Amino acid sequence: MSLITLTTDFGLKDGFVGAMKGVIWGIAPQAQIADISHQVSPQNIREAGLILARVAPYYSPGSIHVVVVDPGVGTQRRGLLACLGAQFYVGPDNGAITAWLATVERQGAPVCFYNLDRPAYWLPNVTHVFHGRDIFAPAAAHLAAGVSPEDLGAPIDDPVRLTLPQPQRTTSGWQGEVMHIDHFGNLITNLDDGRLAGAHIAVVRLKGAEIPGLVKTFGERPIGTLAAMIGSSGTLVVAEVNGNAAARLNARVSDAVEVVFG
Amino acid sequence: MSLITLTTDFGLKDGFVGAMKGVIWGIAPQAQIADISHQVSPQNIREAGLILARVAPYYSPGSIHVVVVDPGVGTQRRGLLACLGAQFYVGPDNGAITAWLATVERQGAPVCFYNLDRPAYWLPNVTHVFHGRDIFAPAAAHLAAGVSPEDLGAPIDDPVRLTLPQPQRTTSGWQGEVMHIDHFGNLITNLDDGRLAGAHIAVVRLKGAEIPGLVKTFGERPIGTLAAMIGSSGTLVVAEVNGNAAARLNARVSDAVEVVFG
Amino acid sequence: MSLITLTTDFGLKDGFVGAMKGVIWGIAPQAQIADISHQVSPQNIREAGLILARVAPYYSPGSIHVVVVDPGVGTQRRGLLACLGAQFYVGPDNGAITAWLATVERQGAPVCFYNLDRPAYWLPNVTHVFHGRDIFAPAAAHLAAGVSPEDLGAPIDDPVRLTLPQPQRTTSGWQGEVMHIDHFGNLITNLDDGRLAGAHIAVVRLKGAEIPGLVKTFGERPIGTLAAMIGSSGTLVVAEVNGNAAARLNARVSDAVEVVFG
Repeated sequence: MSLITLTTDFGLKDGFVGAMKGVIWGIAPQAQIADISHQVSPQNIREAGLILARVAPYYSPGSIHVVVVDPGVGTQRRGLLACLGAQFYVGPDNGAITAWLATVERQGAPVCFYNLDRPAYWLPNVTHVFHGRDIFAPAAAHLAAGVSPEDLGAPIDDPVRLTLPQPQRTTSGWQGEVMHIDHFGNLITNLDDGRLAGAHIAVVRLKGAEIPGLVKTFGERPIGTLAAMIGSSGTLVVAEVNGNAAARLNARVSDAVEVVFG
Repeated sequence: MSLITLTTDFGLKDGFVGAMKGVIWGIAPQAQIADISHQVSPQNIREAGLILARVAPYYSPGSIHVVVVDPGVGTQRRGLLACLGAQFYVGPDNGAITAWLATVERQGAPVCFYNLDRPAYWLPNVTHVFHGRDIFAPAAAHLAAGVSPEDLGAPIDDPVRLTLPQPQRTTSGWQGEVMHIDHFGNLITNLDDGRLAGAHIAVVRLKGAEIPGLVKTFGERPIGTLAAMIGSSGTLVVAEVNGNAAARLNARVSDAVEVVFG
Repeated sequence: MSLITLTTDFGLKDGFVGAMKGVIWGIAPQAQIADISHQVSPQNIREAGLILARVAPYYSPGSIHVVVVDPGVGTQRRGLLACLGAQFYVGPDNGAITAWLATVERQGAPVCFYNLDRPAYWLPNVTHVFHGRDIFAPAAAHLAAGVSPEDLGAPIDDPVRLTLPQPQRTTSGWQGEVMHIDHFGNLITNLDDGRLAGAHIAVVRLKGAEIPGLVKTFGERPIGTLAAMIGSSGTLVVAEVNGNAAARLNARVSDAVEVVFG
């Protein structure tokens, strides 16, 4: 059995994703398909990539992750098949792999990249506006059905990478920023566990709020208070217990967060 | 393996669709189920039908499309099983098949229609308000499990058809209308590629905007500008590059669009 | 084949559910997974439980329902595996099973309960904030893959139960309350068919509206009027035909509804 996941900014109402599934099952009828998210903010490649980096580690070897957030559709941007460890990415070559690729490289796992340039593995009619359906779904399905990566495209070694913001050391701790705001309004930052481990955190500052120390989980603080903790992906998260920290603090992606040791 | 798709106006929060899936798998445990859309506007049969017509061509022979947008549930309206080419529709006989049926007839593929009048293939208790779960899910599952169409209902030849708006020839081009507004705010019209092919389009007019010519894809115009192009389903689309044309133009379904040749 | 359903308050945009699916398929590659709802109101255990109680009866013996609405994650609250008749619940021990359990007990079907206390069946690294991924998804997958309930935890007999509001007999009928507002704005009450059967209902009162009698289905009343009927789960529902009763009446969960016999 092969497993294909889908991450897009297509939303759920128009049937775009349903068309991709029809294409996939037409080529690889046994494929399991999992929707990761179709509510990526329109054209937000970085957001799609961060979701992918958080979710992919929980998938098995051989899984194929199709990610289509594609403002460059129909232009000269390449289609990309990437092997990241034992899993695969299929989608535009637009940097969506950046965060996941960094993790895989840090782990020393093998990577490889192919330019999806073989129309034999696409739909017969390729539009200029929906490569998710016309190129990436069929390419992923052929991969799931046993076609080798080398047959799907020519090898390349320069996939597009985004520049992601890096935390900065301060005199008293670290300064980072909000990378993602989740469904609950929790503010997920780029300050990872590794940087914070071992130090005693006196206060976390974000949008004027001063949050004392770290807790291990929501239940340690009363409902309605702000709390800082290490989230499910190993980075600092600011949350309101049973509430919405983003709404309360009027916070947005890229807002600064400061950790003060003490 | 049989494939069943689901298109409804049930939304995603209440578990209505989950109940349908339980019913389907209880009868046809091997069925693959794909959600096409559960965010059809409430009671909007035409919208469901347009989504179906865009998506069904990407599905394999034998696929069964269950569409439940059903303001007439519990009244005298019939339940319909339709064969359209080598695929199937199961749902209320309310005209949702109109656009897809027109395509299939234009291609000369065979069609057939049955009135779902055999309670032996429904749930034992049928409510007056949820035939998606009580009649259409089990009928589709029995079909997937090998029951023949003739066993599910009596043949009929007069399925309900909607009157869909047709483009009008003007002295200088065509006048059509907005048929659907997608997740990105792109305005999908009923002016199809066939009508526009070969002519040189000087301008597209919609809600007071004048859009010069056609582009092949989004990347040909700067971010934030309006562009007209042939969309992924072969009809004229008006879009804002990386933006929301519907919000910008305050456009709605049924708004007029005019194409001027020149 | 085993069937696992998922009901959470995680929303659809962040990939939380996608991570759970990866974990499940890593352990039980053949499992079918159905999403019931991921749009439970944040932290609303009662709502999740009512959805579960409405949907579970449509699932086959052996089905495993994973429900993760978990404000107590990381605290002393237990993880629960419950057998309810021939199906299973896996999730926090927080009362989400209450309504479904009451139904199963009323039917005299067997029940059993286990405290999920065996880390051997969890992910190796368990966070303090996402037990849906780290504990409940793997426990459910091991159950689907054939591990016996007794191996997943120690038996208990005191699962948490919520106190759900019960209808009150009045001199002229019944008083109940709104339990759920669905996607259409229909108001689903706790006045069940059993209590109302046989009596003639003169009027239903809700938020100042007086609705005469019961109808069998929407089509019996003109578009835009309020109607009261027995809904798809066997309880009294107040709806606006092709409209939104909740918006019209400014109604909320817990609002009183009165049925007057006559």
